[in-house]
Amino acid sequence: MATQKKSIAVILSGCGHLDGSEIHEATLTLLAIHRLGAEYQCYAPDKKQFHVVNHITGEEMAEERNVLIESARIARGDVVDLATYDPANHDALILPGGFGAAKNLSTFAFDGPHCEVDPDVKNAVLLTHKAKKPVGALCIAPVILAKLIDNATVTIGSDVQTAEGIKKMGARHSITGHGEIVIDRENMLVTTPCYMLDSRVDHIADGAENLVKEVLSMAG
Amino acid sequence: MATQKKSIAVILSGCGHLDGSEIHEATLTLLAIHRLGAEYQCYAPDKKQFHVVNHITGEEMAEERNVLIESARIARGDVVDLATYDPANHDALILPGGFGAAKNLSTFAFDGPHCEVDPDVKNAVLLTHKAKKPVGALCIAPVILAKLIDNATVTIGSDVQTAEGIKKMGARHSITGHGEIVIDRENMLVTTPCYMLDSRVDHIADGAENLVKEVLSMAG
Repeated sequence: MATQKKSIAVILSGCGHLDGSEIHEATLTLLAIHRLGAEYQCYAPDKKQFHVVNHITGEEMAEERNVLIESARIARGDVVDLATYDPANHDALILPGGFGAAKNLSTFAFDGPHCEVDPDVKNAVLLTHKAKKPVGALCIAPVILAKLIDNATVTIGSDVQTAEGIKKMGARHSITGHGEIVIDRENMLVTTPCYMLDSRVDHIADGAENLVKEVLSMAG
Repeated sequence: MATQKKSIAVILSGCGHLDGSEIHEATLTLLAIHRLGAEYQCYAPDKKQFHVVNHITGEEMAEERNVLIESARIARGDVVDLATYDPANHDALILPGGFGAAKNLSTFAFDGPHCEVDPDVKNAVLLTHKAKKPVGALCIAPVILAKLIDNATVTIGSDVQTAEGIKKMGARHSITGHGEIVIDRENMLVTTPCYMLDSRVDHIADGAENLVKEVLSMAG
């Protein structure tokens, strides 16, 4: 009998680090999943992006875009409405970073520790956690785990203000460097800083690969 | 004296494979360049995309987007107007694929072998070629080399119709599988099929790495 490949759900938040998913982090998470012998399914919430940002100037553009539709650019069309997520269909859940995680998946970019998490994201993370399956998060996305999971230990690298925000949400923060991961065995969480540090794309590949390896190991 | 790192110029064509650069191909080209010890600079033409496509439905959207601004999503803001490209500043040039190469960088998607190539793209490829520096192209982008360079030998994988179009432009086509490259030593061209085949993201990483390795080797 062939061994069933492990399946990892990946939550995207748009396409581009200033208003959606960080493209390198998302792509290199998908690559690591394939290279480590597992499969992925991308999900995203079907809702309007908080805003659209010109990635050259950093300025807001007078446009509207949809998180699910833009996420499909990274997922090559194969992305599913996060509202349909069921942890029974997957072995683990991973949230890549980019400001989309703090603007579309949560309001951390605006409200810091008092942020709210998108209901579908909250549901997906908490159901996965309750099912005793691992959850990974990259870059700024670990703030969502800090908000939702009691006594979580996470990393966002070394940014003092964000680390303070994480502590105010009742979580612990561990400082990390390029490609390093923080493992919270009790809560089955794995996090890595990626572009929360001043990084090159090869650092991102290292971090994503280390994170996916540990997530798959936790998934048993 | 420290050895100067090689610099590769990468031409993007938007952000998303149906109307711009294929995101995995572009990201994994950048990754391969860093992993192989070189640096990159992204370029894109500053012009309107041919159109905007919903990457879930494949249908055209009633929007306008700019190729340079959307390319900045992949380049994390560090992308330069292709009109300013000077081959003296780089050791090689690479064109990732995605329909953007056949819709924004050229008209191959509509006109096949009778296509026109964007003037800035034409200039960049021909000046690099004349300077005896290597040019790499992934996926559908090799059609641009077939159009511009006499007696080019390239690959787009195994698609019969596209291979016929390449031959009609006076070039030769070699069939390839996942991750394989075709080397045209005389013209200093390297090409690889990527998503012109039914591929996984790990195949794309293999193809991009093999291509960048050969391009850097040709760059001496």
